[in-house]
Amino acid sequence: MTASTLTVPRGLAGVIVTDTEIGDVRGQEGYYHYRQYSAVELARTQSLEDVWFLMFQGRLPDEAERTAYRQEIGQARLAPEELLTALPVLCPAGSAPLTTLRTAWSWLGAHLDLVPMYDSSPEERAATALRLAALAPTVLAAAHRIAAGEEPVPADPTLGHAEDYLRMLTGSTPRAEDVRAVEQYLVLTVDHGFNASTFTARTVASTGADVAATLVAAVGSFSGPLHGGAPSRALAALEEIGTPDRVRSWVREQVAAGQRVMGFGHAVYRTHDPRSEMLREVAQARGGDLVDFAVLVEREVEAALAELKPGRPLYANVEFYAGVVMEQAGIARDMFTPTFCVARAIGWAANVLEQARDSKIIRPAARYVGPPPEVAGDGAA
Amino acid sequence: MTASTLTVPRGLAGVIVTDTEIGDVRGQEGYYHYRQYSAVELARTQSLEDVWFLMFQGRLPDEAERTAYRQEIGQARLAPEELLTALPVLCPAGSAPLTTLRTAWSWLGAHLDLVPMYDSSPEERAATALRLAALAPTVLAAAHRIAAGEEPVPADPTLGHAEDYLRMLTGSTPRAEDVRAVEQYLVLTVDHGFNASTFTARTVASTGADVAATLVAAVGSFSGPLHGGAPSRALAALEEIGTPDRVRSWVREQVAAGQRVMGFGHAVYRTHDPRSEMLREVAQARGGDLVDFAVLVEREVEAALAELKPGRPLYANVEFYAGVVMEQAGIARDMFTPTFCVARAIGWAANVLEQARDSKIIRPAARYVGPPPEVAGDGAA
Repeated sequence: MTASTLTVPRGLAGVIVTDTEIGDVRGQEGYYHYRQYSAVELARTQSLEDVWFLMFQGRLPDEAERTAYRQEIGQARLAPEELLTALPVLCPAGSAPLTTLRTAWSWLGAHLDLVPMYDSSPEERAATALRLAALAPTVLAAAHRIAAGEEPVPADPTLGHAEDYLRMLTGSTPRAEDVRAVEQYLVLTVDHGFNASTFTARTVASTGADVAATLVAAVGSFSGPLHGGAPSRALAALEEIGTPDRVRSWVREQVAAGQRVMGFGHAVYRTHDPRSEMLREVAQARGGDLVDFAVLVEREVEAALAELKPGRPLYANVEFYAGVVMEQAGIARDMFTPTFCVARAIGWAANVLEQARDSKIIRPAARYVGPPPEVAGDGAA
Repeated sequence: MTASTLTVPRGLAGVIVTDTEIGDVRGQEGYYHYRQYSAVELARTQSLEDVWFLMFQGRLPDEAERTAYRQEIGQARLAPEELLTALPVLCPAGSAPLTTLRTAWSWLGAHLDLVPMYDSSPEERAATALRLAALAPTVLAAAHRIAAGEEPVPADPTLGHAEDYLRMLTGSTPRAEDVRAVEQYLVLTVDHGFNASTFTARTVASTGADVAATLVAAVGSFSGPLHGGAPSRALAALEEIGTPDRVRSWVREQVAAGQRVMGFGHAVYRTHDPRSEMLREVAQARGGDLVDFAVLVEREVEAALAELKPGRPLYANVEFYAGVVMEQAGIARDMFTPTFCVARAIGWAANVLEQARDSKIIRPAARYVGPPPEVAGDGAA
């Protein structure tokens, strides 16, 4: 680069790419919000569809909008006939559901004949973004069932998004308390500041690519181990511990071996992760041995970490109780991260729509540090 | 974000994300290089395979490596049988070839059972990156033929990459001069500084996602009109002008109407675009009415722009003669940008491999500017 350049922290940490009205995370306070609402409060009081409306429109719906939006999402969840035919090809044997979603979204970009972002109106873009995000549970549930040798279950547009996802996944009508617990989990994970997949979606959007290109890129970024995490890991750790008396020694072994304790610690939060707190509440409302054990482990691990790593506040993160909530709701473990993605797809879509109102490409620079070029400044010579 | 934040130019312009040993663009000098070699010199003297080796390994191959690498790329170009079966499904009617490549790369991520970047050795990653990049011409040519109702032509691993691409595209053995001209075009477009798709690929790589996820994201970014451009537009402009006497008035009309003159101007170059200079040379070596007219138009447009927009140096960019060279070689116009992508896939792959040696996630920040949250700092309350 010959233009003036600016050296900033590694990984662009703390570098502001854009203004946003979508939400924010306050790491010191243990607080995050969507638009002007506490995400935890929204999870307590609102449906996923209302929060979806909020993310896309910037405000909560009124009664008529609520009904219409729920219907629109329900219809959008119905897979095109051609997608159902294509799906068994799109997910070769052994495919991870997130990879199938990536392929299916890309395929849908062609099938829906999407045009570059700036060649469509804001309303067209919003409809496309809603369509693709709404198909996430349909595709993920179908991928799961195809992998298990079962027939996909078609979407039911009359149901809520969370309920229909669970139904498409398991093939039977879910219990109301499972639906509400999973819906609360989904609301809590729709968005979370300017995370890596959200940034990826916005970067691709900034080139003017179509909406499918942005979501396809985002889910790829989300699949990276340094980003998405995996709620199933925390659950696996609970099982590894096995019994309450093992907790202390297990934590010490982990820390002594230089291992991260799965489900604890977060890049941004310096206090309790509000998602974890809320999910503990959700899990405790259901009750049972698993959550009781998890609460005990949380307490012991936090105490042990405070002792072994003083000055480094490490609390249970979203993974820890997310796994408990999904296990309680009967979701298969390989669908924990895909379930997270059902929610995050809505957040990506909202961010892409916001990015589309900017017309500046996101294109930083690199510093060449290799051997000096042998023939510099020779133009076309 | 509560962490300290840093406000930088819009779109991260000039913000250094990473150190790189892959190459650089010197906009003031009209010079760019791969590793320590002038890209123009490489296009003059080296094969595409040698440049590929250079991009991946950091040095030019010796004689034995040259032969082995050409064979490795040839074998990697052969599509798995399952991909050939899947392709007609992966590209629904009307698919743009770049969209098909995006879907096919995603599909290959599942088919090849790719693991997260950091779970593989550098050699495994390089082999995967080479495999996926090598399949780009195979998939793009097949997508083009399927769209035209023709049978895909299987790869011939004994041929050079450029020759085999042209053969798979047209179904017949290309002329040696077409092969060399297109190969030079491909060498010239393998990489070009820290462009938007390259940055996208590296961002996804930084999460530790698999190689397919990075290339899928990159091709999506590349498809954005603010990024990739389209060599066919410059050719369309030539045709719109029609005859030499029309050039002056046409340019004036464009500028008066506030239209960009397609094929002129570049974000980084403040002098002649070295790619355009070299491609003019390549096109002139072939000769013919088209290139003669293009040279005339270039001269007239540059003179007119210098007069109408003094102080803003606007020269022919890579699009201008790229279209001429591809037209001379008999490449269909909807394959101009996909042909660009055959080359750029190699650059993306090299960048991903370099990024994988870093373990820091690329994750900048955003500034919340919406209405203040209603219940701030309430933690889980």
